[in-house]
Amino acid sequence: MISAEVAETVRRVDAFIRETVIPYEADPRNGGHGPTDELVQEMREKARALGLVAPHVRPDGSHVSHVETAALLKASGYSPLGPLAVNVMAPDEGNMYLLHKVATAEQKRHFLKPLVEGRTRSAFLMTEPDGGAGADPGMMKTTARPDGNHWVIDGRKTFITGADGAAFGIVMAKSPGGATMFLVDLPNPAIRIERVLDTIDSSMPGGHSVIAIENLRVSADQVLGEIDQGFRYAQVRLAPARLTHCMRWWGTAKRAHDIATGYAVKRHAFGKPLIDHEGVGFMLADNEIDLKQAELMIDWAAGVLDTGAHGTVESSMAKVAVSEALFRVADRCVQILGGTGVSRDTVVEQAFREIRAFRIYDGPSEVHRWSLAKRLKKLNTPA
Amino acid sequence: MISAEVAETVRRVDAFIRETVIPYEADPRNGGHGPTDELVQEMREKARALGLVAPHVRPDGSHVSHVETAALLKASGYSPLGPLAVNVMAPDEGNMYLLHKVATAEQKRHFLKPLVEGRTRSAFLMTEPDGGAGADPGMMKTTARPDGNHWVIDGRKTFITGADGAAFGIVMAKSPGGATMFLVDLPNPAIRIERVLDTIDSSMPGGHSVIAIENLRVSADQVLGEIDQGFRYAQVRLAPARLTHCMRWWGTAKRAHDIATGYAVKRHAFGKPLIDHEGVGFMLADNEIDLKQAELMIDWAAGVLDTGAHGTVESSMAKVAVSEALFRVADRCVQILGGTGVSRDTVVEQAFREIRAFRIYDGPSEVHRWSLAKRLKKLNTPA
Amino acid sequence: MISAEVAETVRRVDAFIRETVIPYEADPRNGGHGPTDELVQEMREKARALGLVAPHVRPDGSHVSHVETAALLKASGYSPLGPLAVNVMAPDEGNMYLLHKVATAEQKRHFLKPLVEGRTRSAFLMTEPDGGAGADPGMMKTTARPDGNHWVIDGRKTFITGADGAAFGIVMAKSPGGATMFLVDLPNPAIRIERVLDTIDSSMPGGHSVIAIENLRVSADQVLGEIDQGFRYAQVRLAPARLTHCMRWWGTAKRAHDIATGYAVKRHAFGKPLIDHEGVGFMLADNEIDLKQAELMIDWAAGVLDTGAHGTVESSMAKVAVSEALFRVADRCVQILGGTGVSRDTVVEQAFREIRAFRIYDGPSEVHRWSLAKRLKKLNTPA
Amino acid sequence: MISAEVAETVRRVDAFIRETVIPYEADPRNGGHGPTDELVQEMREKARALGLVAPHVRPDGSHVSHVETAALLKASGYSPLGPLAVNVMAPDEGNMYLLHKVATAEQKRHFLKPLVEGRTRSAFLMTEPDGGAGADPGMMKTTARPDGNHWVIDGRKTFITGADGAAFGIVMAKSPGGATMFLVDLPNPAIRIERVLDTIDSSMPGGHSVIAIENLRVSADQVLGEIDQGFRYAQVRLAPARLTHCMRWWGTAKRAHDIATGYAVKRHAFGKPLIDHEGVGFMLADNEIDLKQAELMIDWAAGVLDTGAHGTVESSMAKVAVSEALFRVADRCVQILGGTGVSRDTVVEQAFREIRAFRIYDGPSEVHRWSLAKRLKKLNTPA
Repeated sequence: MISAEVAETVRRVDAFIRETVIPYEADPRNGGHGPTDELVQEMREKARALGLVAPHVRPDGSHVSHVETAALLKASGYSPLGPLAVNVMAPDEGNMYLLHKVATAEQKRHFLKPLVEGRTRSAFLMTEPDGGAGADPGMMKTTARPDGNHWVIDGRKTFITGADGAAFGIVMAKSPGGATMFLVDLPNPAIRIERVLDTIDSSMPGGHSVIAIENLRVSADQVLGEIDQGFRYAQVRLAPARLTHCMRWWGTAKRAHDIATGYAVKRHAFGKPLIDHEGVGFMLADNEIDLKQAELMIDWAAGVLDTGAHGTVESSMAKVAVSEALFRVADRCVQILGGTGVSRDTVVEQAFREIRAFRIYDGPSEVHRWSLAKRLKKLNTPA
Repeated sequence: MISAEVAETVRRVDAFIRETVIPYEADPRNGGHGPTDELVQEMREKARALGLVAPHVRPDGSHVSHVETAALLKASGYSPLGPLAVNVMAPDEGNMYLLHKVATAEQKRHFLKPLVEGRTRSAFLMTEPDGGAGADPGMMKTTARPDGNHWVIDGRKTFITGADGAAFGIVMAKSPGGATMFLVDLPNPAIRIERVLDTIDSSMPGGHSVIAIENLRVSADQVLGEIDQGFRYAQVRLAPARLTHCMRWWGTAKRAHDIATGYAVKRHAFGKPLIDHEGVGFMLADNEIDLKQAELMIDWAAGVLDTGAHGTVESSMAKVAVSEALFRVADRCVQILGGTGVSRDTVVEQAFREIRAFRIYDGPSEVHRWSLAKRLKKLNTPA
Repeated sequence: MISAEVAETVRRVDAFIRETVIPYEADPRNGGHGPTDELVQEMREKARALGLVAPHVRPDGSHVSHVETAALLKASGYSPLGPLAVNVMAPDEGNMYLLHKVATAEQKRHFLKPLVEGRTRSAFLMTEPDGGAGADPGMMKTTARPDGNHWVIDGRKTFITGADGAAFGIVMAKSPGGATMFLVDLPNPAIRIERVLDTIDSSMPGGHSVIAIENLRVSADQVLGEIDQGFRYAQVRLAPARLTHCMRWWGTAKRAHDIATGYAVKRHAFGKPLIDHEGVGFMLADNEIDLKQAELMIDWAAGVLDTGAHGTVESSMAKVAVSEALFRVADRCVQILGGTGVSRDTVVEQAFREIRAFRIYDGPSEVHRWSLAKRLKKLNTPA
Repeated sequence: MISAEVAETVRRVDAFIRETVIPYEADPRNGGHGPTDELVQEMREKARALGLVAPHVRPDGSHVSHVETAALLKASGYSPLGPLAVNVMAPDEGNMYLLHKVATAEQKRHFLKPLVEGRTRSAFLMTEPDGGAGADPGMMKTTARPDGNHWVIDGRKTFITGADGAAFGIVMAKSPGGATMFLVDLPNPAIRIERVLDTIDSSMPGGHSVIAIENLRVSADQVLGEIDQGFRYAQVRLAPARLTHCMRWWGTAKRAHDIATGYAVKRHAFGKPLIDHEGVGFMLADNEIDLKQAELMIDWAAGVLDTGAHGTVESSMAKVAVSEALFRVADRCVQILGGTGVSRDTVVEQAFREIRAFRIYDGPSEVHRWSLAKRLKKLNTPA
């Protein structure tokens, strides 16, 4: 299911991450709030020289299959810096996917092209604070009011990844007949970053912001796709974006596992290598099983998407299973490394923090379980 | 990966189990120690009429692929009686596989043919009591001593499934240069069933026996395969046999899940259907995830076997993951059904007991984790 | 908190169980559906000779404290036969407690005295099938209709432990102003045992029955306590009865742990005693922790009851924590014993089955968690 | 078991933490590496005014009982800043305990008095890098070589909490007949802080350092207690120090639980308060159970220490059970809070990180399980 060409790109991404990106992890510009944009650009320059920027997008703008994307993104995630270096990080990667599917030619030229080329960053403004749209998008409070040939948008957004420093944002708001998405160049005086949250994760440039949108005027040609189709487009973006999170963090969890394995083979305690202690060896065996299961779930759900199906159910199942499996892996790796595991001497500590957040991002496990149960009820209720 | 022909057989097995086998579950001949041989033969007669006896063996004696076997055996397991009805139950199915690979034409005619036809049962005499061969086969104490053109075998075996009532057994014993397997018609005065164990599971005719072998004389043509190659043949049988356990019990766990789902949709508590209680709905969602992951692990490991590889590692990983996942599924189903779950009013109670035993049969999880850790150490230790 | 006198009785109960009761476990009269009444009486005769029948009830009919009861019942549970032998088994023990609190002198003479003396068995008819009173008692469908100086009761009950063979039952039914409890001699032609359920557990004589009550006439003096106070009395019985379940099964889980520990010390695999394998040793360490925590929870909740509080919340917390902890213990013991663990060669297999049922009896964990969450909400909601 | 006087102090500590300390959590001086010494002193000044500095030490220098300490320290931990504010934080609290037991009058005057008064900080230099003393103290590589009336110490230490900024350190080193502890004023040119580790936790001033000790000369009167008794003193400090960790983090986990409960009552999703979703309510119920069990384990182990026993086994059991229970609590709280849970808008995020580290500090769970299994083997092996 993976073409020879993509397989070769996977191998090159893998080598690039190991040889070029991993050494940057210790760079002082890779701080507690993630790498600086300067550092990202420096890595991207090297990726560009190798043709590895946005490797999942073909020269004609089309995307490789979801199963192929899985192979590429798992390789990229082997360093927490990797997805940035090769430009497959959230939210940019999901935004590329959505714009590719929905944007006009002009919108693609203006917004998508520099994004795919790795020259800009973007944001996706959907989640809201104070009981607004979160796990339950139906609670959206941000409004888009038509005003002649324009729209006027007001509301607040929270947890907007990468907004600080983004070149544009996709703003979702309630319109009279549903919800509508708008493309807006950033920074924009009507879109004020109230504060950048201090969060447990630290891999995303720009962090996560709380944002006030006040009297934002946008013109009709800034509408993404059709008016009132926002929830439908959110679905288009949703399932693949969830899965690409799984793919990237899979790579990071695999890295943590490899570090823990190496440590357990070398380090001795109570007269033998750690790995010869079943208490440690069994944890590593469970890691192997969890990683394999997570990989199979990712590939299965990606395969469903490749058939053209929405894959909402499958990506929900994968999100729950993969995020929880990878967290167990990361947690075990921390435990195996002991004191070193809770220090930043290896990326295991970061992997643990990032993957903890991942259990909440793109819908906490509980929301997915809830929707799986609802569907099961529907399937089993006689009409 | 599944031929259209096998896919069609899967559909027919599935229909046969649902329409013909499930009603037999309430038959009084299906008691606490499993169905009587009479009941098995009655079901098999019906399967034979449909051409569904040993559906994984082609008319020429060859076996369908492991991935195809998975589809057939999952369907068969939808009733705990199903694998018996269509003649794919342990230990017969594993013995068919081994004899097909290793036996002489004459041995196949005498032992294998009636077994595949579902007219006989068989046993595999490897595991030993009292610190003999168990999880660690190297501790084998049963000996085969050459005596002219014959062999004389002495020892004790335990947990020998189906020995009581079997038409033949494969006896494994330590020979001067390793271990050797022998084919022996049963009953045989030198092979004494000391007692049939009372066990938590109850799906296997003949139960599990403790056996004394005293001065058993076998001739050279009863050697299965080559002398001293017993451990190698045990490996040949091992990985596929482990996986077929996974396949059959997967079907049974799926059945339990379907019963629990149906119950949760219909039964009300505290003012709404059980399934609308997240405490129940989330358990069903987790079942869906566990069943899917188990299925993917089975298919993955079967696919590795289909490449011709031994699949020892992959089948170990699958055995641990699948047995533990299916146990979680069965345990949740019991819990959802409440009082009904711990009664024999549904097969959920039996599924729970059987799958508990499955976590130990064919190597407890701990032995598999131990061997996975050993391999990981080897792979990560510089030469 | 335990008087010297009770402490001495605990020691004697403990010795009696170990020396006299445990040997009866292998008695053929102790079958798959629990011991026969004959076997129970034989053991009780020996307990009576030592003054150990209902050791928690003082000669004047008063009960020792709940904390003292914990010590006695934990000791009794060291054999699954123990609580029967010393007459502290459910439902009799809970019925003794309730009658002691609520019954008239005449009712005590007729029903309670022979029960405490261990000469009769009793039943508690509350739970109903078909969406009636179960985890949610408010759904009670059995009705008690006043008819002159009598009551006429109609309805169906299920999972009525020990009804088959009981000398009397406490029947709960909806009365015009609430629910009322009635004392009824058994057998009674208006109380028909439709069937005895086949269940996973096997320690309770008489098993668990489905019962039809048709036109049962009872006189006013058969009312237990006051009319319409049935739900209140159910609460009086509930918390202590839940806890005594915890106490008895604690003893059984401790027994399983001791058996597993002994096995792990003696049995070798891969060149050393099982207990030297961390995979086994860690399970035993976790057993020790779980058993200690369970003991502390029992004593804490019992101590709350001893202050005179209802202890509904505390006994709910204890029920969830203890039943789940003991199940983990039993499950680990099965795993450590391997094949032996799933056979009835030791009581570990029975402990596993019984404690699985215990996670459902007296309210499944989910119902307790639900009520704990409700209370937490109430406590944290501003008036 | 808690005197009226201490009970009153507990109430006052509790009020102080809630009213005075919690507002400091948002102080900019409370940064990613914990509060500055200036901030600590400011809080301590206020505690001093209320007589709440080191409230577990009586005016005569004696310590309240371990059970009383538990009550005080649980109250202090309700803010991560609390133990620092009232001067019961690690490693100072453990060092106070050890010096109180072992130091000479002169050592007490010079080192202990200002420490108890909250005017200085201290360090405990035991753990070593590179396969030295860690979970297995027998691997100690730092040496103390007698040189006339002096000792010369050389070696490396790691994960030395609070060394940066400490007024003195207790240095442990291998001496000819065992191990010896030395008291050393800090800073000292022969004790070089190579670097302060960047760790997942951030509550300890001075962080955790890697330290090189080169040619450190100490005089005979700097020996703590007797020569060669270092391992014995480490044991004296060990069990109580482990437990005080449990006590402090218990308070922090309780805080997280209270925050999550408040959030779940107020915040709505899918049409009702979060707490009315069983997926959330059950997590809170499990928190209640875990917190209660953890509290009971702490009090039980503290009670054992109060009898004068070493409590090594009991504190090991408590350490494993409590650290893992509190981690589950913190993890659930993060999950309930969703996006807010992974941000530093509440202390839940910090609680999660700190308690993750706690599962490793003072011996990872695996080492405790290992020693529990060893003891169990010993107890069950016939002499």
